[in-house]
Amino acid sequence: MEGEPTLRLRIFDLNCWAIRYLSKRRQERVRLIGDTLRQEGFDLVLLQEVWSEQDYSDLKVKLAGCYPFSHYFRSGVIGSGLCVFSRFPILDTLLYQYSLNGYPYMLQHGDWFCGKSVGLGSWEQGRSLSLSLQLHAEYCRDKDAYLPHRLVQAWELAQFIRHTSKAADVVLLGGDLNMHPEDVGIRLLRGWTGLRDAFAEATHFEGCKNGCTLVPDNCFTDKSELLPFPLGIRIDYILYKAISSFTVRCEELKTTTGRAPGMDIPFSDHEAVMATLHIQRQGQPAGATLGTADPALADVVTEARTEVGAGLQAARRQRYSSGRMAVLALLLLLLQAAAALGTLAGLGAEQPFPKLSFCLLAFLALGVLVLATGLHLFHTMEVKMLHGTEDQMWMVLRALQERP
Amino acid sequence: MEGEPTLRLRIFDLNCWAIRYLSKRRQERVRLIGDTLRQEGFDLVLLQEVWSEQDYSDLKVKLAGCYPFSHYFRSGVIGSGLCVFSRFPILDTLLYQYSLNGYPYMLQHGDWFCGKSVGLGSWEQGRSLSLSLQLHAEYCRDKDAYLPHRLVQAWELAQFIRHTSKAADVVLLGGDLNMHPEDVGIRLLRGWTGLRDAFAEATHFEGCKNGCTLVPDNCFTDKSELLPFPLGIRIDYILYKAISSFTVRCEELKTTTGRAPGMDIPFSDHEAVMATLHIQRQGQPAGATLGTADPALADVVTEARTEVGAGLQAARRQRYSSGRMAVLALLLLLLQAAAALGTLAGLGAEQPFPKLSFCLLAFLALGVLVLATGLHLFHTMEVKMLHGTEDQMWMVLRALQERP
Repeated sequence: MEGEPTLRLRIFDLNCWAIRYLSKRRQERVRLIGDTLRQEGFDLVLLQEVWSEQDYSDLKVKLAGCYPFSHYFRSGVIGSGLCVFSRFPILDTLLYQYSLNGYPYMLQHGDWFCGKSVGLGSWEQGRSLSLSLQLHAEYCRDKDAYLPHRLVQAWELAQFIRHTSKAADVVLLGGDLNMHPEDVGIRLLRGWTGLRDAFAEATHFEGCKNGCTLVPDNCFTDKSELLPFPLGIRIDYILYKAISSFTVRCEELKTTTGRAPGMDIPFSDHEAVMATLHIQRQGQPAGATLGTADPALADVVTEARTEVGAGLQAARRQRYSSGRMAVLALLLLLLQAAAALGTLAGLGAEQPFPKLSFCLLAFLALGVLVLATGLHLFHTMEVKMLHGTEDQMWMVLRALQERP
Repeated sequence: MEGEPTLRLRIFDLNCWAIRYLSKRRQERVRLIGDTLRQEGFDLVLLQEVWSEQDYSDLKVKLAGCYPFSHYFRSGVIGSGLCVFSRFPILDTLLYQYSLNGYPYMLQHGDWFCGKSVGLGSWEQGRSLSLSLQLHAEYCRDKDAYLPHRLVQAWELAQFIRHTSKAADVVLLGGDLNMHPEDVGIRLLRGWTGLRDAFAEATHFEGCKNGCTLVPDNCFTDKSELLPFPLGIRIDYILYKAISSFTVRCEELKTTTGRAPGMDIPFSDHEAVMATLHIQRQGQPAGATLGTADPALADVVTEARTEVGAGLQAARRQRYSSGRMAVLALLLLLLQAAAALGTLAGLGAEQPFPKLSFCLLAFLALGVLVLATGLHLFHTMEVKMLHGTEDQMWMVLRALQERP
């Protein structure tokens, strides 16, 4: 930002839904995204769900002329899916992987394997930060088993932003937060960081009604999921804040509307969000606005802490059940060992020893033991992280209440 | 730091070796540590390897009078083992878990289960940061299989410090880095962050020769490990730096010498490190010294990148081997399924079907399949993280070389 009193910044954010072998018309869509980005010439492009490194490399080659700087964030088994393209030099990057991200045994949801993270890129010696991210998906809104995990992620994200952005002028965040605007997680994130929602602040808006980014008009969305929301839902956001002697204003916000501009198919099952921000240097420092001015913040933190507490109880129950199952399997194995030793010692030699059933049972017990032990370890970690987050929230609540 | 032109800060750092059921005379030593800390009245206490939360709670109760503020960092299956006690209010905390930390199947080393992390506590609205941490242990110096993981940790730690400390006045780091002073990891950490070593900078030093913290005189150390180093090794450090308009000077550094002061047993198998720092406000800002002034830094990053690259090659080989093993096990299972189907269809009915051996073989193949798939996933993650670190280092090298 140095030396430039005002700057007009055009940002593009999209969850690309580019899963190899699974996403429909992936290669065609990635090509389309690349063509559009090259034509439009944004300043900063934040992409999520680019799971294949090959897709990233193809985009990089195509966009080398207009976005000479880019970074792909690697993590997890499949990857983080996050990448950024930029007109300005990216000087440094940092990846923060959330400590909780679903369950490895929920293979059909698969979030655990993605290593969901927030990727931070810094420009101009860290005076400007941009974050690209995705939080755990919501599979069932009425009975959302992943809410505590998503809240831990929102909290860790907020803490990460607070701690990394202290010397920055401007923070920009774009991503698929998998939360509706009124959800506790997004209120927590916004309240605790002071980030502002480009949709709510935009002087001019154009796109899907209410800024929705998952809409029934998009041919790739699952219509049954959107039945309770006939207009669609808004879960992709561009958030921003100015910290030191700068102000940021959102001039314009656009979303695609089920189809990419001028094309017959959409970019993705999500709509793209495009913001034009006006960044201006002020005469004097505005002071750190780390988002602790909101008097309702304590209520939001309390609400989030209650949900995390409920998740903690559930995790403790699962840890107990898996531990008990492991102990039972071990007891069964010990019993079998005793029976086998008894037979070897000649006890009950008058009866034929049922070798096959014995082996089957032993392997079954061994399998259950290994699985239950693994689950027990996993839920122990889950308990630790939920407990740690609950503690941190409590510390913040105390500090908020002690403040005049 | 506000309002106080000079401050004398006394810091205590110790790897407590307090593993339940495994560490010798644990409870006695934890009591002793608590008594000493209460008597001595330090300003800041950074402890590692406090694996039992009960030990932390006991210390917290005992130290409530002189260290009213404390925090225990939870992570991993066993925990991070990190905690801090402070005379000043801890306003905020953040835990960063390293993305790589050994192998889950190396049960005898156990680092993977600890969820090794760096815990950050911030004082006075983030103007002063302290970090407590432990990196992956070194089990064999000549053939150190964990060097790439430790380098990734050192790099992530350095990046974490750079990104979180930009607005701080003073950064203090205490911990068991599991690296000798001349090792590439510590040169990387110091070079890339600008942290200074209290031992090298201290005006007055008292304690084990060369500041060693793992010494043969300590009755709990493994003497065979220290055979090549008759004086001991220095792997626990207090590092510090001033960023804005402050200067930090190390007045005095002390270590214990195999026995706790005035006692007949040591606090731990490591020696404690105690520093007295003199923090002074300067007339004008000293400018950000983010440790990029050292001309040899590019060489250090190149050296570290070469080691990480070697680790990446090894991880790729292991990923390939485990993948091949999984495919072979799957083929065996398919073959068996074909044989079973053949028998059911009446082929080879003249021969008796060897049910028992068949079942044993099937379970063996299934076990190998599950294990090999798990290993393949783990090594895929390892490859991603090593590759990501290599990329980040390359980006930094390019930036260093482009600078005048």
